[in-house]
Amino acid sequence: MGDATGIGPETVIGAFASGHAAGLVAIGSARVFARAAAAWAAARPGRLPPPVAVIERIEEQTLVPTGALPVIEPEGLPPDLEALPWGRIDARAGAAAARCIEAAASLALRGEAAGVVTAPVHKEALAAAGGAHPGHTELLQSLAARGGVVPPVRMMLANPELRVVLVTIHLALRDALHAITFASVLETIRIAHAAGSRLGVPGPRIAVAGVNPHAGEGGLFGREEIEHIAPAISAACAEGIDARGPFAPDTVFMRARHAPPGKAGEFDIVVAMTHDHGLIPVKYLGVEQGVNVTLGLPFVRTSPDHGTAFDIAGRGVADPASLVAAIRMARRLAGDIPTAGG
Amino acid sequence: MGDATGIGPETVIGAFASGHAAGLVAIGSARVFARAAAAWAAARPGRLPPPVAVIERIEEQTLVPTGALPVIEPEGLPPDLEALPWGRIDARAGAAAARCIEAAASLALRGEAAGVVTAPVHKEALAAAGGAHPGHTELLQSLAARGGVVPPVRMMLANPELRVVLVTIHLALRDALHAITFASVLETIRIAHAAGSRLGVPGPRIAVAGVNPHAGEGGLFGREEIEHIAPAISAACAEGIDARGPFAPDTVFMRARHAPPGKAGEFDIVVAMTHDHGLIPVKYLGVEQGVNVTLGLPFVRTSPDHGTAFDIAGRGVADPASLVAAIRMARRLAGDIPTAGG
Repeated sequence: MGDATGIGPETVIGAFASGHAAGLVAIGSARVFARAAAAWAAARPGRLPPPVAVIERIEEQTLVPTGALPVIEPEGLPPDLEALPWGRIDARAGAAAARCIEAAASLALRGEAAGVVTAPVHKEALAAAGGAHPGHTELLQSLAARGGVVPPVRMMLANPELRVVLVTIHLALRDALHAITFASVLETIRIAHAAGSRLGVPGPRIAVAGVNPHAGEGGLFGREEIEHIAPAISAACAEGIDARGPFAPDTVFMRARHAPPGKAGEFDIVVAMTHDHGLIPVKYLGVEQGVNVTLGLPFVRTSPDHGTAFDIAGRGVADPASLVAAIRMARRLAGDIPTAGG
Repeated sequence: MGDATGIGPETVIGAFASGHAAGLVAIGSARVFARAAAAWAAARPGRLPPPVAVIERIEEQTLVPTGALPVIEPEGLPPDLEALPWGRIDARAGAAAARCIEAAASLALRGEAAGVVTAPVHKEALAAAGGAHPGHTELLQSLAARGGVVPPVRMMLANPELRVVLVTIHLALRDALHAITFASVLETIRIAHAAGSRLGVPGPRIAVAGVNPHAGEGGLFGREEIEHIAPAISAACAEGIDARGPFAPDTVFMRARHAPPGKAGEFDIVVAMTHDHGLIPVKYLGVEQGVNVTLGLPFVRTSPDHGTAFDIAGRGVADPASLVAAIRMARRLAGDIPTAGG
């Protein structure tokens, strides 16, 4: 469901209504989805709101009439979510979003679902609800812990032109600089390498971006490349991984960009040190085709490459294209559809 | 001339040979330009190397035969520059590049030239030559000092889709974070605003990017936005400047992108906090049309949006398109051609 006051619920309605979510089950408040369905229909004269059907277990989706949205309602959702104003930070919406993620992860961890596709949450709403995790990725990582040990996970952003795996994500930039270590960079390269096969590019060519201007220009503009990043690349190469760099952040994405016809990228995956070094190029041409993938979890997890878009929430106009792309990517990673292409 | 061992000299030859540099005078070593002309011709069967004509003063360019490159040789160039191997960091090439910049700036400061277009230098070569300035921008700023006071200058990167003005440039990222202050952000916004008229967009809509993920997400991921950036935006607005933000770095460039037909950007100029936040999107679609402009100097200064490209230097294949765009931008800023368009 994501944040009940954002565009998440209406993009879920849009994905189901366009036939792109067959076989999926929505996790959230049936009344929130019904409100989103009404908003979706209000923006489409002549269309009726898709009906919402509450089910208890995933396999009951086969009992739901064609055209209806099968919804599992997690226990412990705050009441009256459908009465929250659209587009406002609210602790109840944050708490509900977290409950939905927990329920979906639980289904995946028990093997009842092949993967989880998440709608956008608002990080301030999650925080207002008292959540200890700044976003989806960290929460899912925590839920996947075994014996108190969290798996190393990394965020990948992908669109048809570019795949980027991030060393650091939801940290103040000054804290991110401290989190760029030999170990964190090497782990990221390994995770990116392991993802290659499931993405249809076994033995991927991995470009590792520096973090400083001109990748430090030989130490003139910072030493992270010399002290942490280059040694991690060497260690990865010694493991047989095709990792190269560190490259200047401002040109490595241009070089990796795959824009057929006419431009084949030099690399299959770029490892970027910070949230925005990686996301600026992925989003530059538009977020419609962008997908966020959490690599390293014991189940598949994808999400659209946009936020809650509070400014347009509830108007029924949000484009479900990125959510549809996230569903398609989840199916691919789960082995449901062939891996050819981006 | 830029770095004598990089692609600068051959792109100068290419720009003159294609007729895009009429009225300009090259500053550098005649022998270096002759070597570049030979490399340029070697890659073009049937073409002869353009001849090089040494002159003493700018007005003597009218005496140079059509098709020849007029060159002013600064005093104090190291000898035998044309014997340096292509594509290697060399202190002599760094020293020569600095001398050429000094000579060109001197002509502009004396009013003999309307502006300066610089070919790429290699920052490690400049440093090897003992230069105190990490790049062109800082060196030109120093040369323009009056009474020991350097003018506040800022780097702008522009292509037909996007204009970005940077608060910080050639600093390690951890040092850049300390250089993001109320004063430095406000000065950057003012300089961007003042550039609008000469760029053909008086009263430009200025978007100010944050520096942290999600522009700090209300303080969860860093406080630079709250403590420095937002107050600077407010102060600029109080001066009548149309400045907005701080916006999340990962989406502001997408929003500002002007890609006709079909996509008019929301903003005319983006103020970015760091070198790579700004340059990643400007370069993402390719550097062919990108131009670097130094705003705030007492003369016009532009340069191509690429480096010395040591890997292809001397083969005569470097594309002069970005240098040609830089020449065109310099003419526009100097009032030589109309300001309509990007």
